Amino acid sequence: MNELPLPTAADVLSAATRLASHAALTPVLRSRELDALSGARLAFKAEHLQRGGAFKFRGACNAVMALAPEQAAYGVVTHSSGNHGAALALAARLRGIACHVVVPEGAVAAKLANIVRHGATLWRCAPTIAAREQLCAQVQAETGARVVHPYADAQVMAGQGTAALELLGTDGPFDVLVVPVGGGGLAAGTALALRAYAPTTRLVLAEPSGAADTAASLAAGALRLEFTPDTVCDGLRGTLGAPNFAVLRAAGAEVITVDDAATVQAMRLLWQITKQVVEPSSAIALAAVLAEPARFAGQRIGLVLSGGNVDLDALPWRPA
Amino acid sequence: MNELPLPTAADVLSAATRLASHAALTPVLRSRELDALSGARLAFKAEHLQRGGAFKFRGACNAVMALAPEQAAYGVVTHSSGNHGAALALAARLRGIACHVVVPEGAVAAKLANIVRHGATLWRCAPTIAAREQLCAQVQAETGARVVHPYADAQVMAGQGTAALELLGTDGPFDVLVVPVGGGGLAAGTALALRAYAPTTRLVLAEPSGAADTAASLAAGALRLEFTPDTVCDGLRGTLGAPNFAVLRAAGAEVITVDDAATVQAMRLLWQITKQVVEPSSAIALAAVLAEPARFAGQRIGLVLSGGNVDLDALPWRPA
Repeated sequence: MNELPLPTAADVLSAATRLASHAALTPVLRSRELDALSGARLAFKAEHLQRGGAFKFRGACNAVMALAPEQAAYGVVTHSSGNHGAALALAARLRGIACHVVVPEGAVAAKLANIVRHGATLWRCAPTIAAREQLCAQVQAETGARVVHPYADAQVMAGQGTAALELLGTDGPFDVLVVPVGGGGLAAGTALALRAYAPTTRLVLAEPSGAADTAASLAAGALRLEFTPDTVCDGLRGTLGAPNFAVLRAAGAEVITVDDAATVQAMRLLWQITKQVVEPSSAIALAAVLAEPARFAGQRIGLVLSGGNVDLDALPWRPA
Repeated sequence: MNELPLPTAADVLSAATRLASHAALTPVLRSRELDALSGARLAFKAEHLQRGGAFKFRGACNAVMALAPEQAAYGVVTHSSGNHGAALALAARLRGIACHVVVPEGAVAAKLANIVRHGATLWRCAPTIAAREQLCAQVQAETGARVVHPYADAQVMAGQGTAALELLGTDGPFDVLVVPVGGGGLAAGTALALRAYAPTTRLVLAEPSGAADTAASLAAGALRLEFTPDTVCDGLRGTLGAPNFAVLRAAGAEVITVDDAATVQAMRLLWQITKQVVEPSSAIALAAVLAEPARFAGQRIGLVLSGGNVDLDALPWRPA
């Protein structure tokens, strides 16, 4: 885990500058029907339309572009078979440096294809955290590559915060921002942006009740990571990072835990009403708002639709 | 069937003026990945993001707003349990006039709910064309309402043409426009817009091979409507209208017929790559382009994504 000092809003602003020529300025979506359903004014930051189909590109790209040239020459390495791995591979290709991705045996082929497509090197390990970290350290030692953690990294957090920065700039002000929380990269980055640019806007985190380590940690005032994730939100199964926790605790972030059934119902509403393919880890933010109407009634709410990388193979495509 | 004179490009322009304060100016979507896959430059007019989730609102709204006040007072009537019925109901509500919709027994409840939601009156009939037309005529006689046919209507055709007008204005010029064809409202409207504003742009119609009456009619030089539709494109099962045929024949429109398997594959690509929920009747336009790469190589192609009203009940939502 990275031991850099915690990032600040100034780092988010620097990230926005670095990302300007690489990331999409994603649109903000509104819906009369969802406003009526929620009794609030909802503005959805469409990060499922970001490059790579998720906000992850922001953090990965910022981390890659922030490297000093002499460090960049050695490339980057991470362990993530999901959106972060693909995002880091794309960012490294844009800078023209090497990217190594440690993936567990048995990872979904479609996801690995997304990583390889951008020219990254795959390193396969046993599907345990110990094996993953060991191989990652080994690759780092052998190649000199810089480790870019999926969320417990100052530049990654700062990069993720640029989504909130854009949302505030195009559709603010807001009474509250609602973002999903897993490892806490997006959540911490959003907190940093709010602290400087919208200090009266509350930060509400939407977390699966089957992976509620952030709720437990913030309630206890210390990291509480002992749990076995059980949720359809595959992007939110990771455990909260230490620097992420520190940022969120200082920000006074609130947490709403959401059952999978409510998340799936919200995902369906988003598909049906907004015609946007978003994944469960995105829809949970809307589910949190719909779960507590009294808490949000009449308010201006910004929500980050974090990604749209759904496993479409699971759908019954006709004809076969 | 309406016996008005055929509409012209001037009617499309008038429609654009009438729609300006009611219809969404839908965005145009681009995709590096789909450009690479097709070997062409694709621009998708996102009519699935139109009010009501389909281009149908353009034609219905234009027909309603074009009525003289003394006629409008008697309301409008149509027979369509699908997107046109809901679009006409919404347009009538916006003008504050009555709307009657004749629907067959057994129509999908979700679709009827969309019509009732906008305050229209439902009239139920037996599920045959004869029963439908008889009841529609009866409602017209009893109420004095004006019949607004889903596609064989001059104002409806002119309204549908505004999608192409916007596409030309924001992203033109194009070598070719590709639109789906069912009854021919969107197809004829697009032909009218092209004739005046982009006379060198070709018009290609994408039609299901299981409902290829337009291909047969244009080849024969006369309406050929004897067929039993068999296609997943539920929006394209209707038979080509007589005025629609006349406009398309004069325009020299080409037709590409597409198998359902290719349409479903294209729909899946659109969901996965663009994160947009589009229905099969929309995806068929992309399928047509992908089916004939040599015909479109290197060209600037505009496609209309006509709607996004997919029956999500058919998908396996987890958990139940």
